[in-house]
Amino acid sequence: MHRIPVGVLGASGYAGQELCALLSAHPQFDLAFATANSRQGQVLRVRAGLAGVREVPLIANETAPLGDVALVFSALPHGASVDSVGLALSAGARVVDLSSDLRPGHGGSTHPIPANVPNSVPYGLPELFRDGIAEAPVVANPGCYPTSILVALAPFVRAGLVAPDALVSVAAASGVSGAGASPKLELLFAEVTENFRAYGVGNAHRHLPEMRDSLARLGGTCDLLFTPHLLPVDRGILSTITVPLAAPLADPLGVLRDAYAHEPFVEITDALPALQDVVHRNVVRITAVPVQHVRTPTLQLFSAIDNLVKGAAGQAVQNANLMFGLPETAGLPQ
Amino acid sequence: MHRIPVGVLGASGYAGQELCALLSAHPQFDLAFATANSRQGQVLRVRAGLAGVREVPLIANETAPLGDVALVFSALPHGASVDSVGLALSAGARVVDLSSDLRPGHGGSTHPIPANVPNSVPYGLPELFRDGIAEAPVVANPGCYPTSILVALAPFVRAGLVAPDALVSVAAASGVSGAGASPKLELLFAEVTENFRAYGVGNAHRHLPEMRDSLARLGGTCDLLFTPHLLPVDRGILSTITVPLAAPLADPLGVLRDAYAHEPFVEITDALPALQDVVHRNVVRITAVPVQHVRTPTLQLFSAIDNLVKGAAGQAVQNANLMFGLPETAGLPQ
Amino acid sequence: MHRIPVGVLGASGYAGQELCALLSAHPQFDLAFATANSRQGQVLRVRAGLAGVREVPLIANETAPLGDVALVFSALPHGASVDSVGLALSAGARVVDLSSDLRPGHGGSTHPIPANVPNSVPYGLPELFRDGIAEAPVVANPGCYPTSILVALAPFVRAGLVAPDALVSVAAASGVSGAGASPKLELLFAEVTENFRAYGVGNAHRHLPEMRDSLARLGGTCDLLFTPHLLPVDRGILSTITVPLAAPLADPLGVLRDAYAHEPFVEITDALPALQDVVHRNVVRITAVPVQHVRTPTLQLFSAIDNLVKGAAGQAVQNANLMFGLPETAGLPQ
Amino acid sequence: MHRIPVGVLGASGYAGQELCALLSAHPQFDLAFATANSRQGQVLRVRAGLAGVREVPLIANETAPLGDVALVFSALPHGASVDSVGLALSAGARVVDLSSDLRPGHGGSTHPIPANVPNSVPYGLPELFRDGIAEAPVVANPGCYPTSILVALAPFVRAGLVAPDALVSVAAASGVSGAGASPKLELLFAEVTENFRAYGVGNAHRHLPEMRDSLARLGGTCDLLFTPHLLPVDRGILSTITVPLAAPLADPLGVLRDAYAHEPFVEITDALPALQDVVHRNVVRITAVPVQHVRTPTLQLFSAIDNLVKGAAGQAVQNANLMFGLPETAGLPQ
Repeated sequence: MHRIPVGVLGASGYAGQELCALLSAHPQFDLAFATANSRQGQVLRVRAGLAGVREVPLIANETAPLGDVALVFSALPHGASVDSVGLALSAGARVVDLSSDLRPGHGGSTHPIPANVPNSVPYGLPELFRDGIAEAPVVANPGCYPTSILVALAPFVRAGLVAPDALVSVAAASGVSGAGASPKLELLFAEVTENFRAYGVGNAHRHLPEMRDSLARLGGTCDLLFTPHLLPVDRGILSTITVPLAAPLADPLGVLRDAYAHEPFVEITDALPALQDVVHRNVVRITAVPVQHVRTPTLQLFSAIDNLVKGAAGQAVQNANLMFGLPETAGLPQ
Repeated sequence: MHRIPVGVLGASGYAGQELCALLSAHPQFDLAFATANSRQGQVLRVRAGLAGVREVPLIANETAPLGDVALVFSALPHGASVDSVGLALSAGARVVDLSSDLRPGHGGSTHPIPANVPNSVPYGLPELFRDGIAEAPVVANPGCYPTSILVALAPFVRAGLVAPDALVSVAAASGVSGAGASPKLELLFAEVTENFRAYGVGNAHRHLPEMRDSLARLGGTCDLLFTPHLLPVDRGILSTITVPLAAPLADPLGVLRDAYAHEPFVEITDALPALQDVVHRNVVRITAVPVQHVRTPTLQLFSAIDNLVKGAAGQAVQNANLMFGLPETAGLPQ
Repeated sequence: MHRIPVGVLGASGYAGQELCALLSAHPQFDLAFATANSRQGQVLRVRAGLAGVREVPLIANETAPLGDVALVFSALPHGASVDSVGLALSAGARVVDLSSDLRPGHGGSTHPIPANVPNSVPYGLPELFRDGIAEAPVVANPGCYPTSILVALAPFVRAGLVAPDALVSVAAASGVSGAGASPKLELLFAEVTENFRAYGVGNAHRHLPEMRDSLARLGGTCDLLFTPHLLPVDRGILSTITVPLAAPLADPLGVLRDAYAHEPFVEITDALPALQDVVHRNVVRITAVPVQHVRTPTLQLFSAIDNLVKGAAGQAVQNANLMFGLPETAGLPQ
Repeated sequence: MHRIPVGVLGASGYAGQELCALLSAHPQFDLAFATANSRQGQVLRVRAGLAGVREVPLIANETAPLGDVALVFSALPHGASVDSVGLALSAGARVVDLSSDLRPGHGGSTHPIPANVPNSVPYGLPELFRDGIAEAPVVANPGCYPTSILVALAPFVRAGLVAPDALVSVAAASGVSGAGASPKLELLFAEVTENFRAYGVGNAHRHLPEMRDSLARLGGTCDLLFTPHLLPVDRGILSTITVPLAAPLADPLGVLRDAYAHEPFVEITDALPALQDVVHRNVVRITAVPVQHVRTPTLQLFSAIDNLVKGAAGQAVQNANLMFGLPETAGLPQ
């Protein structure tokens, strides 16, 4: 079976490491190079599932042989990624960009977009927006929080079940790997263990533009309030989503089951999803619960993902599978 | 200085242990007995602050010399506590009941209330309802979640700043000690570590009646949606409270600072409160943040407490101090 | 490819759950039944690697169709397992027993061994004692601690490099999953988090007989001191082994590399092994470090395993692979 | 009661923060200044026990008014501390140095010692070497590991109960706060949680010289092997100490109880000490267990401390109390 050479830019971050791990075990992609300026010359040890541990040499971004691969995954920091996307395209490679630079609203970044990079690229959340990914030269991989929230909300928004102009409120909590692998005081073990706090409050998180834009694309007219929290866990996101309804809903779980009956990476469950249910898997696990004892019909959605898999590297591989006509599930833990 | 003999019923639970620790270091209360049927005959080691570790012998509930003490703290399970409250009153002791049996709504319990127990007793949240505590034969100690939520919300409800009939939504997260010390599979370390999940969803938690009743007492007309989550930490509760406002609010922090200027156990802060800020302290730490990018004026409150201290044992001692005319802060870590 | 029906007794413990997970993803074994008296009638959700989550119905031990399978894995408690081993043999099935009942020294158990169970069965630590496993009707699966310790020590003992009659001292630390999934106070999250302690001290742990017997089989004359500790982690064991040497050793790593050059499940490393290197993998990861500044030549070995995989379920599948002539690595994460 | 002005150099590290917390609640010391070049201009929030939270302004080391205080605590990094000790002495202050610069062996540092600093200063482990501390201009505060190990070993070494020339082997494990508060990749939460590993192996840890020197002072002729490990906890050290004995010992606990009958900060216990028993307390908690099933008489000691309290800041305050003729227990949680 003919193999497809791919490369990873920014492999030393947690998302980059997860990408290298998934690609090292992928049935058709070959990891041709991995870059990490902060750790160039070192070797990255990644766990390739049943295939065991693989050692990936890290080179400098500047020395990446972009022209030798069919696809480049960019896990470079927000703001710094888009220029490398341009270089990869110029070199003839296609790109999955894990940064927010090319997502709707550009993650609030004002960094200029290179001339050869399309100003609008497909938003790679296949369960909602699969069209256009297969042909795209560049795909913008969604943020971790938006993935957990949009997949849960979309069926209700699309069906017009959400009260018009209402405020959809999301309290979400993420493991620390979502904050990246660069050493910061507030990410030290002693600061995080036995602790819990909100951050990025006031509805000003970088992920809001892509969520608002996506809800509008789905026909939503609701406001969105998003409040992230930092959990003392390594990985995983749980989003607790409160949805004012246009009218009482007899079978909210049915709405989810119908919407995702044919999606291999969405799990609809009667039980409340927990982080331990989803870590190391490329799934969104969701349940829906009607709210009692309130005047207006209200629904709660609970949505769990692994922020590094379905929230980043796994979804990037899922997009790459689509871009190269492979089975969407190739090399991905369901 | 004359000392006051007190006793603890249900000392082997985490709240009971915390009570014994605080009372062992209290300047005027003397711990005369501590009961725990599950561990009778054993000795409980508790940390009495600077005073070091004290050993407390555990006796059977039935053998507690209720008549020998001026005050009984009941940390017995919900439903099982109220009968012991009756016995203590008959024996001539006053009581602080940490269970939900005598709180507004009786925690949803249908357990009959003994004849000699008042059907309505002061709800011991001094920062909001100090009147009546000093004289009361029995005080109902509030739940941990209600303490964190009501103290934050009250100034806005009292001042009529909350939009009438609106839905106030609370996403709260608690450490596992809130679930007690009786061995259950879901509380094992392996089940809780690296995990996070909601529980008691659908707005059906035992703490809701006392919160709804208290909000009404404060003049509130809002609905309340309360969604608790289980954190992989030992102790601490963070409540994230979303409040629809009647009108935009220029200085929400000012509202809190004015309301609690003279309260020793309420900390108003510019920074976001974290669990590590409050553990082992008898305080509620709160901040307020206006929500941007939404059509209707909305406020978020973030409130942190130690569920075993201000959420249980510390508040119980605070009530006991009031009941016996002691300084409200006696023996309590601020 | 023809498939082999197997069953699991005692599937609700952590080792039993891991067995069901591995067997659900195994290329040739079919999980025909799984028993758990404490949870009969319930469904066990297990993660079968890339194959995703599988649901395994739990039945009562008594109703297990032992005659319908070629192999039974018994993960029943120590003392309770051997009788079921007898029943399985009578029903015509072969057995891998994960309990200590049939290990050398019988884990100190005095429980009578059924007439149809061989009094001495192969000790299923393939890297050291592969002979006899393939033909055996019953194999005793080693303990988790012994696996981590014996694999590291064996090459030095076999080569006569350990000082005669010396004391080999092992300080080992295990995650709580090693203590099983039955609710006990000391295994509650609040008791384990931010804590660390020794247990089973005085050289009296159940695992000592099988370690002493195995060292003797390898030609060792040394004494063994084994001190286990409880870690605030879910899974993983690290053994720190201090070895008095007969003479200074130029290249201890070379001794290990030569011994295990052809073993797929042993990793010899220059770096110090950490639990995160081995969790969810069927490997023993080992390094060796000479001790400086002491009068007598001394070596330290550091050995890490996942107590539920190479320390239990993974090794059981490895033994089963050998018993049925499959590739030793079939269905096992290296 | 007349108060004594003191200052802290290096207050932003975890030991420095603990010092500021203890001093803010001390009955006779007044914290006059605290320095932290990395965070100068910021305010440090510390918890002063029952006294509540205090805010400590951080200034630059260079601007510290060394002449205005009677005592300077230096919690500056190893190698960087001794020069500041010299400056403090020149300014007329006495000093407790928490670094290893002035301990026996100087922590292996070759950094030149200023002319006005005595080349040999009292080693401030009062339970073993109280003489000379009261009068000393400078005291070297012991390391955390040495404190836990030496206090446990000393009574047996002093009484000649340890086998001559034998190898005493220590496997110790510490929480991450022992590694300091400067951001490093290996101290990030995601790297430490669910992990455990040894470090500084081969008997080459910086703390060995002070332990070897102290054992010799106590009359010991034994070798010492010290192997530290990193625990996924914030604070606490457990040392597991294996001691070859000159002869079997009938009552090892009695030896410890006799030795420390009058020491307020040493707890001898029948039970195995755990980190949760000692955190936030200025104590060493120890038990002794005879080893069975070995040819030569062997003893195991288990010793637990809080690395930031008895292992650093608490012991520093204990030394300061002695230097100024205060009760040794003043301001210290037993």
